[in-house]
Amino acid sequence: MIRVGVLGAKGKVGRAICEAVEAAPDLELVAQVDAGDRIETFVDSRTEVVVDFTSPAVVMPNLEFLVANGIHAVVGTTGFDEERLATVRGWLQSKPEVGVLIAPNFAIGAVLSMRFAAQAARFFDSVEVIELHHPNKVDAPSGTAYRTAALIAEARAAAGRGPSPDATTDELDGARGADVDGVRVHSVRLAGLVAHQEVLLGTQGETLTIRHDSIDRNSFAPGVLLGVREIGARPGLTVGIDPLLDL
Amino acid sequence: MIRVGVLGAKGKVGRAICEAVEAAPDLELVAQVDAGDRIETFVDSRTEVVVDFTSPAVVMPNLEFLVANGIHAVVGTTGFDEERLATVRGWLQSKPEVGVLIAPNFAIGAVLSMRFAAQAARFFDSVEVIELHHPNKVDAPSGTAYRTAALIAEARAAAGRGPSPDATTDELDGARGADVDGVRVHSVRLAGLVAHQEVLLGTQGETLTIRHDSIDRNSFAPGVLLGVREIGARPGLTVGIDPLLDL
Amino acid sequence: MIRVGVLGAKGKVGRAICEAVEAAPDLELVAQVDAGDRIETFVDSRTEVVVDFTSPAVVMPNLEFLVANGIHAVVGTTGFDEERLATVRGWLQSKPEVGVLIAPNFAIGAVLSMRFAAQAARFFDSVEVIELHHPNKVDAPSGTAYRTAALIAEARAAAGRGPSPDATTDELDGARGADVDGVRVHSVRLAGLVAHQEVLLGTQGETLTIRHDSIDRNSFAPGVLLGVREIGARPGLTVGIDPLLDL
Amino acid sequence: MIRVGVLGAKGKVGRAICEAVEAAPDLELVAQVDAGDRIETFVDSRTEVVVDFTSPAVVMPNLEFLVANGIHAVVGTTGFDEERLATVRGWLQSKPEVGVLIAPNFAIGAVLSMRFAAQAARFFDSVEVIELHHPNKVDAPSGTAYRTAALIAEARAAAGRGPSPDATTDELDGARGADVDGVRVHSVRLAGLVAHQEVLLGTQGETLTIRHDSIDRNSFAPGVLLGVREIGARPGLTVGIDPLLDL
Repeated sequence: MIRVGVLGAKGKVGRAICEAVEAAPDLELVAQVDAGDRIETFVDSRTEVVVDFTSPAVVMPNLEFLVANGIHAVVGTTGFDEERLATVRGWLQSKPEVGVLIAPNFAIGAVLSMRFAAQAARFFDSVEVIELHHPNKVDAPSGTAYRTAALIAEARAAAGRGPSPDATTDELDGARGADVDGVRVHSVRLAGLVAHQEVLLGTQGETLTIRHDSIDRNSFAPGVLLGVREIGARPGLTVGIDPLLDL
Repeated sequence: MIRVGVLGAKGKVGRAICEAVEAAPDLELVAQVDAGDRIETFVDSRTEVVVDFTSPAVVMPNLEFLVANGIHAVVGTTGFDEERLATVRGWLQSKPEVGVLIAPNFAIGAVLSMRFAAQAARFFDSVEVIELHHPNKVDAPSGTAYRTAALIAEARAAAGRGPSPDATTDELDGARGADVDGVRVHSVRLAGLVAHQEVLLGTQGETLTIRHDSIDRNSFAPGVLLGVREIGARPGLTVGIDPLLDL
Repeated sequence: MIRVGVLGAKGKVGRAICEAVEAAPDLELVAQVDAGDRIETFVDSRTEVVVDFTSPAVVMPNLEFLVANGIHAVVGTTGFDEERLATVRGWLQSKPEVGVLIAPNFAIGAVLSMRFAAQAARFFDSVEVIELHHPNKVDAPSGTAYRTAALIAEARAAAGRGPSPDATTDELDGARGADVDGVRVHSVRLAGLVAHQEVLLGTQGETLTIRHDSIDRNSFAPGVLLGVREIGARPGLTVGIDPLLDL
Repeated sequence: MIRVGVLGAKGKVGRAICEAVEAAPDLELVAQVDAGDRIETFVDSRTEVVVDFTSPAVVMPNLEFLVANGIHAVVGTTGFDEERLATVRGWLQSKPEVGVLIAPNFAIGAVLSMRFAAQAARFFDSVEVIELHHPNKVDAPSGTAYRTAALIAEARAAAGRGPSPDATTDELDGARGADVDGVRVHSVRLAGLVAHQEVLLGTQGETLTIRHDSIDRNSFAPGVLLGVREIGARPGLTVGIDPLLDL
């Protein structure tokens, strides 16, 4: 049994993580801390791994405390730029046995689909991305689609692949989507959807489609639990859950 | 057994139609005519229905001959504008028992999917169209996607439906597709594809997707045979195969 | 503004309907009744249409009261067999101006997809059904898949269509799915899904796919509101929302 | 320019490979051999790599000749059991610089989708396979679906994963598909399809779908060309194209 604590335990995400930890037979939820609570609780309860989904404003001192006290951390809080990552690496130098995982996306399916798309991209003549979201989303394409297209473009460039073939000469403005690093990206906004993405790859006579559907905000939970289980064996800073997937 | 003839019998499409007629147990292929052959062959062989997939340059005199001789016609040749249709109606006035079917698209699946999309459109908050084709296609969107979007827009207007909801404020140029009568249309061009279209309709908590895949130029054959079987019972001019579908 | 009341207003479904009515600009929520409340409230508040999602045990006297008082009803409560329907028809004879809608499924997308599948079935050589649900479902196939297959089988029989072609001679037990009236039905059970169904229709060179995805228990709301808006113009008993769709 | 020869050059597959080689800017087609032709042609023409799509009855002596003469081989001919593979390894011992690739499936998309499915399988609670083929196929499931399910089962077992959750208690015979090593496999047979497969993986709130569509018998060509380009740098026997994909 791994002894797990949660920071930001009363937030919507925090509550979902508490539930997921309690439901896992190999994990024990030993401490819940939110704004106003004493962070020392994690030490008192001999917490081994803390999950932190709080806010950019408070995450740094909390993380410093955890590292200083030899507690591993799994962090989903946003706002980690290069400067902040360097600061965390600095703290870890004096505590080389501690592991910290900081990830922008814990949805395993999303991470796998980006990875597979990038791996497959160099074998196909053509590749395009369709992302589909609920109509309240303000940005198009989605951040995930941008990253996916960038990874695909990078893989194709490394393999010496030119652009996807396209004979279009007569286009109604916008029909062929947006151009992200040479990869066409189409953004659908539809009532009844949540967050979905499809990467289409094609060559002579065959196509490969990698589709990810996320219909629930809890889709981060399996990725967080994977992090909790693995971080103890991965001292130092790990960015993104990809390395944990051992692909 | 219906006695069937084919005009343009040596062309690629014509040959496919001859094969389809020969394979049908209720149809008999009694005459094949191509450039240089005598059109009177259809009279000599007592042909009941002629299928015409020729060219705009030769279709009109052939059609006039067929009507004058009391032979029904199923026509896939392109180039029929209002003026040509009026001319055909004129010929049919003196031969009220003859049926002529002129259709721009014999793929039953394509026709049905347009029809269903238009029927469903008024019940959903959102609707978008994705069409996917081989990369040698020069126009985007496809003609079918234009027609589909126009039918959807018409149905929504008739039902007093406003535009699909869309909170996008931050768009990379082209991401949200082309605007056809207020309906967003996305055009994918990918090696390994032939001709495909997806209409996505969504409302609170549910979506309906109508997808048509055509992977073979022979996908017109079942629609042509339907026309051959039905046109004898439909005197006068019929435009498009929709009326034959009895929906 | 239509004056709407809700019976079973404190239940999960009832609360969702109250919210949907309040959010609709052309409807006014004027009365909410649950177990223990006076049903006369609907008369006092001059309610025009009552939505009833209660239980088979209490629905009949409530419905009798509504009809007797000239109030239209939209009923999603289950358990209506032929006998109960006959009883309701009897009440309506003395109140010919009242409309009652009783429907087993208010998800418009589900109803449309069954309808379209049945309409398309006679034009395709092959048809199969795949239904996909969360892994807690106890029955396979789903009730909707049974009904869909039955409607398809009926349409094919009426058109003189034989069984879908199938050359399988070497089958691992169960691979080809279940046989419902001669239509193959495949049931997928997968974590991360809710309720989904795909009807695949195919003929030479083309396929048509009609897919319905329901990811939210609120997907009945648009169908209920449609019923509320239409039932005033449809005196007598209407079973199922199909007639309201004017297809 | 790699100098390429083709064995079985007049067969349907052989002709398609000749065309693909001629269309590739970095490959030169220098020899075509079929039944009755002299195999020494490959030596005379200084062929570097020979592609062999012939028959189990003739492939072994041809392959022995090629290895003996220092010519690399890319072999799509079927019928290689462990005994035949051992024989080929024996020949290669005295010619350690020669590379031989023997692969049952050259469709890159099919190979990648099996690989990705196996990699992803251990991260998801549920996994099922749907394979869809033309109605003339005699076996169900397809060979590819069997292999895919077996790879998935192996990966799940290695990760200590139990069976996919399934609460079904009331099943119409066959609805839940066939059981291949504990993985459910569904086989659809539909006119208008060619060869398609979908692996569905699901966990809380998210699903990942890996779909492969093959609509053309030429979908082996890109994989064969990949083999031709890579085999020179891979002395010894390589079984399957997976190692060439460098994943």
